[in-house]
Amino acid sequence: MSELTVTPLAGVPEIAPGDDLARALGDALERAGGLVEGDVVVVAHKVVSKAEGRIVESGDALEVILREARAVRRRRGDLVIAETEHGFVCASAGVDRSNAPGEGTLVLLPRDPDASARALREALSDRFGSPPAVIVSDSFGRPWRQGTTDVAIGVAGLAPLLDLRGSADERGRPLESTVIAVADELAGAAELVMGKTDGVPGARIRGVRLPPGDGSARDLVLPPERDLFP
Amino acid sequence: MSELTVTPLAGVPEIAPGDDLARALGDALERAGGLVEGDVVVVAHKVVSKAEGRIVESGDALEVILREARAVRRRRGDLVIAETEHGFVCASAGVDRSNAPGEGTLVLLPRDPDASARALREALSDRFGSPPAVIVSDSFGRPWRQGTTDVAIGVAGLAPLLDLRGSADERGRPLESTVIAVADELAGAAELVMGKTDGVPGARIRGVRLPPGDGSARDLVLPPERDLFP
Repeated sequence: MSELTVTPLAGVPEIAPGDDLARALGDALERAGGLVEGDVVVVAHKVVSKAEGRIVESGDALEVILREARAVRRRRGDLVIAETEHGFVCASAGVDRSNAPGEGTLVLLPRDPDASARALREALSDRFGSPPAVIVSDSFGRPWRQGTTDVAIGVAGLAPLLDLRGSADERGRPLESTVIAVADELAGAAELVMGKTDGVPGARIRGVRLPPGDGSARDLVLPPERDLFP
Repeated sequence: MSELTVTPLAGVPEIAPGDDLARALGDALERAGGLVEGDVVVVAHKVVSKAEGRIVESGDALEVILREARAVRRRRGDLVIAETEHGFVCASAGVDRSNAPGEGTLVLLPRDPDASARALREALSDRFGSPPAVIVSDSFGRPWRQGTTDVAIGVAGLAPLLDLRGSADERGRPLESTVIAVADELAGAAELVMGKTDGVPGARIRGVRLPPGDGSARDLVLPPERDLFP
């Protein structure tokens, strides 16, 4: 098992609707030495959403949150835990005011974050000759634990789950129901070099053992029949 | 913002009750080039628990789980979501059968994972002359999302949360309630090189911007009054 490196994609300029994000990220990747086979590129959804124009001007954040939500799971004061159209359960249905371009401006989640990841993967493949796995990430809170961790809300070119069911442990005993959310751990690792305030909207991760195959970030959504905390 | 590297701590022999885990991890660290200031050492709780003798022989896992649990939050079939004595909410109250030393053998969580982390930190500091931050990790499932991610259940020499409240975003607007669970993201990053089946019970992480100060993994536990999913 070899070393894993997480390299910040720095120097990306402010992104506005219609900007060529793949080009800006590609420039940052080039400064970081480019891509090799097996690399993963993690991009904060905020810049993806901005490039895709998923921004609304509104003084009424709650109205926007309720419009973005497929269902509200809990509500206490300003805090709304909601299910998005994609099936993700998170605060404010993913609507975010921090790092938004102006007062009263809200950034929404991309409409189809897997498609956003696929488009970036294709553009970066064209430029570097090697298609990276791409993860679009967001910072989600968790029940029972303080603080957010970054998780995958869109993926391309990788299976987000590593399924070890059927494998054996060191002593040859079968592992019990061990499925690892590798894409979420990769998103969290990328957050460690991205920060929130310093204009580093992505990271390249090299040296990771990726699960075989391809998939969708929706693979990470627990089916309703297994949800014990509706 | 610089690169982060995650290096597996490989070649650690099977750990049994009473074994000197700090020495075994220190040997693996030495093979990986030792420690420098600011390094983080992540150790899977399983080897910590084994070294501390937190193993029980029982054919009745459920009885052991209920004994380890302070409260049961949900139960469906074999799945028990329980609150541990430490305040963590997780499957089976942290009781685990995979990688246990024999049939009918269960591995419990360490009694005081922060203390376990502190002891490792002190022993590694004595050996290498530089005290690493230490995280004891476990694989937790999450509501609403498939798969487990590794999280911190014990820490020493680091504050597990990076609190950016009061900071400003790129445009000088204050960030809203942004607290990042850095210790959980570090635990997840370490998992990516540890695997479950190949005898790599830890990792060294270098190049991370650690939150200032010290803390406890209990800082990661959401206080009951903020818990919307009791």
